[in-house]
Amino acid sequence: MKVGIIGLGLIGGSLGIDLRRLGHYVWGVSRNPATCATALTLGAVDEAAPHLDHLTSLPNTDIVVVCTPIAQVVETVRQLTPWVAPPTVITDVASVKGAIVPPAQAIYDHFVGGHPMAGTAGQGITSAQPDLFRGRVCVLCEGKGLAQVQYLWEQVGMTTLICSPTDHDQAVAWISHLPVLLSASLINSVHQEPDPHIQALAHRLASTGFRDTSRVGGGNPELGQLMAEYNRTALLSALSIYQQELARVRDWLVQHQWAELRAFLHHAHHDRQQFDSCR
Amino acid sequence: MKVGIIGLGLIGGSLGIDLRRLGHYVWGVSRNPATCATALTLGAVDEAAPHLDHLTSLPNTDIVVVCTPIAQVVETVRQLTPWVAPPTVITDVASVKGAIVPPAQAIYDHFVGGHPMAGTAGQGITSAQPDLFRGRVCVLCEGKGLAQVQYLWEQVGMTTLICSPTDHDQAVAWISHLPVLLSASLINSVHQEPDPHIQALAHRLASTGFRDTSRVGGGNPELGQLMAEYNRTALLSALSIYQQELARVRDWLVQHQWAELRAFLHHAHHDRQQFDSCR
Repeated sequence: MKVGIIGLGLIGGSLGIDLRRLGHYVWGVSRNPATCATALTLGAVDEAAPHLDHLTSLPNTDIVVVCTPIAQVVETVRQLTPWVAPPTVITDVASVKGAIVPPAQAIYDHFVGGHPMAGTAGQGITSAQPDLFRGRVCVLCEGKGLAQVQYLWEQVGMTTLICSPTDHDQAVAWISHLPVLLSASLINSVHQEPDPHIQALAHRLASTGFRDTSRVGGGNPELGQLMAEYNRTALLSALSIYQQELARVRDWLVQHQWAELRAFLHHAHHDRQQFDSCR
Repeated sequence: MKVGIIGLGLIGGSLGIDLRRLGHYVWGVSRNPATCATALTLGAVDEAAPHLDHLTSLPNTDIVVVCTPIAQVVETVRQLTPWVAPPTVITDVASVKGAIVPPAQAIYDHFVGGHPMAGTAGQGITSAQPDLFRGRVCVLCEGKGLAQVQYLWEQVGMTTLICSPTDHDQAVAWISHLPVLLSASLINSVHQEPDPHIQALAHRLASTGFRDTSRVGGGNPELGQLMAEYNRTALLSALSIYQQELARVRDWLVQHQWAELRAFLHHAHHDRQQFDSCR
């Protein structure tokens, strides 16, 4: 296959490394010439340039994978249209799908929305690594060229799962976007503690429980904001339910209803094991 | 030293193992004769019995460490009073101090409240292990015999930190008890998702972010309930502030105030590094 990658960061770079090791031809685009040079050095691309018109290997590309930040995906698809035509497939890797798939498909007939659920705390081409995707799930949305995109991600070791943009967005609101807001609010709440002595003590005593609960809230602020902005409706619906649950917990504390609280914690204890990643 | 341990679970058993390896004499009490036998086999105690009156090595004990669940600590101190007298010191390991230290000191003059901040996901004597406490912090509250209790925990590798019961309880409400409630509410909220298909998808797609954020909420329900019950006031105060923070986040989402949300996430990103355990 000949694969193009727009945006050579952690995801784009890691994908390039894996594809080239499998014998595929990979070209890449990054606005930053230094990133292009690093991608070449790391073996993530065969050719890289800051603009599409500088690439010599564009013709006969099978798939273009848009790995830009969420806010640039649809515009990037638009910028690709003078350069590619079906049967070339365009796909993306953004963590929201409802705000991207319909407009992207309106612009380009062979667009398939994708979300490879893999990553590290790292960012940028220097964090790119082989086998980042192996054993993880890639969500794909129906579109012309689906089988080809499915083949791409399965080649690098992912299991693919097909669902609608709306279902994807509501599910990731629950398991990814809502946790970021809860976790960040925990960190910032401690900062609201009025007694500086207690605040210092909390900083000192925090242990593995706080570290784990606060981890995703301490992540990349730009990414967190974009996820919220582009998945606003699903996230608000999850947040409403969460606030109701928390209000119930508060009522039990206020009214000394300890049996109810215990049943709630029992439910959480057992329900957590229903999540694949928590077994 | 001669040390007595009441309650041979994870904490009591692990403490016994460390103290005996250091050459101290350790007796233990557990209601369950099988636990006494296991503690002897594991080398956590030199002598163990289900009742104080069955012990031959009670006289001249330097410190008695009460390692029972929170709800039994004060009553256990009361039951010890016919058997021990100053300068013997009684201390405890409970994760709340305000509900324990004043009543326990009213019952026994040489009582020192303690909270060794160490543990594992395990429970009971079979989870006991050497070096559980090494490198961790033990909070102690002022009381007659403080230096001796300080010496005990420093012997097994802990750093001791002295503060008031009230300050301790507010700090652990922030970094330990509040995270349990937030995390359990996350798990139970997903269960409230009305569409079973989306719920199944969330279970399938949950990854490391969800796993970490939900970890403490999926812990021991009895312990979670007791922490809330015995630290109710401090926990309610932390929960109120948290609910206000979350309401601000919700308002930003409703009103599309993305710059405010981004600043909030930036603050969380930087503030998290102020916590010793998160560096």
